[in-house]
Amino acid sequence: MHCKLLHDNDGQRTFAVIMDTGDEVMTTLSGFIARERLHAAQVSAIGALSDAVLQYFDWTQKQYIAIPVREQVEVASLLGDVAEGPDGQPALHLHVVVGKRDGSAVAGHLRKAHVRPTLEVLVTESPAHLRKRFDPESGLALIRADA
Amino acid sequence: MHCKLLHDNDGQRTFAVIMDTGDEVMTTLSGFIARERLHAAQVSAIGALSDAVLQYFDWTQKQYIAIPVREQVEVASLLGDVAEGPDGQPALHLHVVVGKRDGSAVAGHLRKAHVRPTLEVLVTESPAHLRKRFDPESGLALIRADA
Amino acid sequence: MHCKLLHDNDGQRTFAVIMDTGDEVMTTLSGFIARERLHAAQVSAIGALSDAVLQYFDWTQKQYIAIPVREQVEVASLLGDVAEGPDGQPALHLHVVVGKRDGSAVAGHLRKAHVRPTLEVLVTESPAHLRKRFDPESGLALIRADA
Repeated sequence: MHCKLLHDNDGQRTFAVIMDTGDEVMTTLSGFIARERLHAAQVSAIGALSDAVLQYFDWTQKQYIAIPVREQVEVASLLGDVAEGPDGQPALHLHVVVGKRDGSAVAGHLRKAHVRPTLEVLVTESPAHLRKRFDPESGLALIRADA
Repeated sequence: MHCKLLHDNDGQRTFAVIMDTGDEVMTTLSGFIARERLHAAQVSAIGALSDAVLQYFDWTQKQYIAIPVREQVEVASLLGDVAEGPDGQPALHLHVVVGKRDGSAVAGHLRKAHVRPTLEVLVTESPAHLRKRFDPESGLALIRADA
Repeated sequence: MHCKLLHDNDGQRTFAVIMDTGDEVMTTLSGFIARERLHAAQVSAIGALSDAVLQYFDWTQKQYIAIPVREQVEVASLLGDVAEGPDGQPALHLHVVVGKRDGSAVAGHLRKAHVRPTLEVLVTESPAHLRKRFDPESGLALIRADA
């Protein structure tokens, strides 16, 4: 991974975070966010992966179901955000659409993915904080914009 | 729905608009846009829905065909914009990619959707206006950047 | 194609680039980027196409495989970036998710596409440069944020 500060607009920094073959997306980006002390940010990316695990949240069982992707795929879209978790630490939340060899698309919550050969990520910081609170109904930590 | 002004950069405001279980996306976001008097803006979001109606524009018949989604889905990508309609009112235009339990993706124009449990929307205002004009060929109101 | 400068924030310009029926996306946007001398930028769009050619990068053969789309489709997501190629010229890199009549999604790298009736593109310039270098392993020019 290598990165570059593209713009600093009065506390709203924009970074290019470029990942290389073998980088795991969630670990690499979480590490970057912790190091740069980003408490609220917007993330978008395109690139390609050697493999991934997506997730679907089963509302009845209140748990994530794994959707393994065991082949090279294009990252057609990766969107997400950073907010402060209930523990005060920055939490990364990413959703992704990947395209297979025949163009068929797989979409969901991103749990894990390995880059090959590149993932071009743009991270735009927000000067204001966004905080997550535990939501008893879903069992998830969700952003409360009024927190 | 609850929201937070994240940044105000010389008339270019960025808002987090967080929707909760049961919120209808088009109605809730249109209400927000009217209240904040946003005449041009960029929208992006991730989250999940209990149900939705997507649309496909049939070019031969010049009308939208409904694509109902009758199950809980992840919102892998929601992108769109706000521009002034021919009536002078702000018009919201959203496209979406949702992911089902097995990861299969459904994509199209967003007509209606109910959030469950959250939709994390970022709305970035533009200080300049974007205007739509009626396009006789398609029968749709389309943005004219030179209008 | 017609366009409008929406914002100029200390060298970080945001443009709306609106394409019309028949415009080819890669050619039109590359022309715009060259004319405005954009060396680093972020691109996002929604709209619709009369036809397209997507691509998948085959890692074993190290070449792109074509995925033709021979029908009217919604552009549910178009994301990408501009960086300086090894030749010093701005290089446009776009990935796309399109939705067919039944909502089924096709995703991949964008090689070519014709707009019908509109494509609403937002281009956000970065004041810093991003440079691509030839990567011997993949045979592709990839962004090096540290270059």
